[in-house]
Amino acid sequence: MSSEKSFAAGSPAPGPVPKDQVRLYSMRFCPFAQRTRLVLHAKGIKFETINIHLKQKPDWFLEKNPDGLVPVIETPAGEVVNESVITSVFLDEVYPEKKLLPATPFGKAQQKMMLEHFSKITPQLFKISSARRKGDDVSGLEAELKEKFTSLNEYLVKRKTKFFGGDTITFIDYMMWPFFERLGIVLSGSFSCLDHTPELKKWTELMLEDPAVKATMHSTENHKTFYNNFLDGKPDFDYGL
Amino acid sequence: MSSEKSFAAGSPAPGPVPKDQVRLYSMRFCPFAQRTRLVLHAKGIKFETINIHLKQKPDWFLEKNPDGLVPVIETPAGEVVNESVITSVFLDEVYPEKKLLPATPFGKAQQKMMLEHFSKITPQLFKISSARRKGDDVSGLEAELKEKFTSLNEYLVKRKTKFFGGDTITFIDYMMWPFFERLGIVLSGSFSCLDHTPELKKWTELMLEDPAVKATMHSTENHKTFYNNFLDGKPDFDYGL
Repeated sequence: MSSEKSFAAGSPAPGPVPKDQVRLYSMRFCPFAQRTRLVLHAKGIKFETINIHLKQKPDWFLEKNPDGLVPVIETPAGEVVNESVITSVFLDEVYPEKKLLPATPFGKAQQKMMLEHFSKITPQLFKISSARRKGDDVSGLEAELKEKFTSLNEYLVKRKTKFFGGDTITFIDYMMWPFFERLGIVLSGSFSCLDHTPELKKWTELMLEDPAVKATMHSTENHKTFYNNFLDGKPDFDYGL
Repeated sequence: MSSEKSFAAGSPAPGPVPKDQVRLYSMRFCPFAQRTRLVLHAKGIKFETINIHLKQKPDWFLEKNPDGLVPVIETPAGEVVNESVITSVFLDEVYPEKKLLPATPFGKAQQKMMLEHFSKITPQLFKISSARRKGDDVSGLEAELKEKFTSLNEYLVKRKTKFFGGDTITFIDYMMWPFFERLGIVLSGSFSCLDHTPELKKWTELMLEDPAVKATMHSTENHKTFYNNFLDGKPDFDYGL
């Protein structure tokens, strides 16, 4: 799959976006770009991927998104949208097939509130990794994280649903998933840290069966290798290709 | 206007939300709650306000929003929505009169991207205040902030519009405004710091003429007094009543 190889500074700019597709600027191991990839797969949207070498960004990419971050979506009409949640909502609104967000304003607000809550948990994951790397005692941070998982578990228990938006996968599940896929980087034993949160653990098992999750995921081993190289300042964006 | 007085711990819980209204849990000087107040006023939504004593929060408020933050919107149907942008989008979607967000997915995405960009500027304002308070040299931070204002000014110049979403006020303008209203707390001379960004300065002048802005604003002097007391750990939530 050489077409997945990342585009670095100096590489020629891709041509116009093909008429019947959207283009995703991505990085294969980025959890935020994975959100958009999950939405594209789940909705069956035809898309092409341009992976970006995030250490040596091409000028033509920085012109599309001066922040230099992925994901970025580009349409044949020249619309450019960045940021993981914004791209995901945009795609869900443009493509009416298999709506991932609820139809009602309150339903949408509920998913956004959950996401806001969840966005305070994700930095915790990266804090643990870097503390462990420095040789610091991470038991306090780990206990704090597990407490947060308990609150997520309680949310599922209270809702009495398998997923965070109901009994089928919806938008919020896809926004949360990439961070759970990477749990094994942070906590030893991967999903075993969810033994005390059985509903949340069951959710991860159900998510692992989802075709969009299967289509976008990497193994814990590959995530670990990529992430350790990344922390060493030597990320291999083409690792495993 | 004694009804504006804040509800502290121990005060009786308000009754059910009146049938033809929504209820806003707010704090009179909070820039985030002002976003929601602007939307309520701009759209002409009938609402009642319950101001919360944020240092001594009533239990019944914490039951509505365990985070304990304002703004919170409650509907007669018992729907509870918190977080400034989420409440604002919710109200704009529920009340079709005078839509503040654009109708197209890309138009909405553009406003959200602008807001995402702006959300990186607002912490800078508070950083300057606390640095100045500590007696630190803030000239570097001020220069950085002015550079960011230059980029906002360029955005208006490029768009060739009076407001951030077009030639009339839309959602994004109301989300940004509360922080500009408070500029005088942070920078001496209030809007004079915008002398080098004429289009942005013109925007603040146009905003000051808007009825929703007029209905929700406080004077720079009042903002200063409240904020200084707040930094002293003694906020007077009923200041000026």
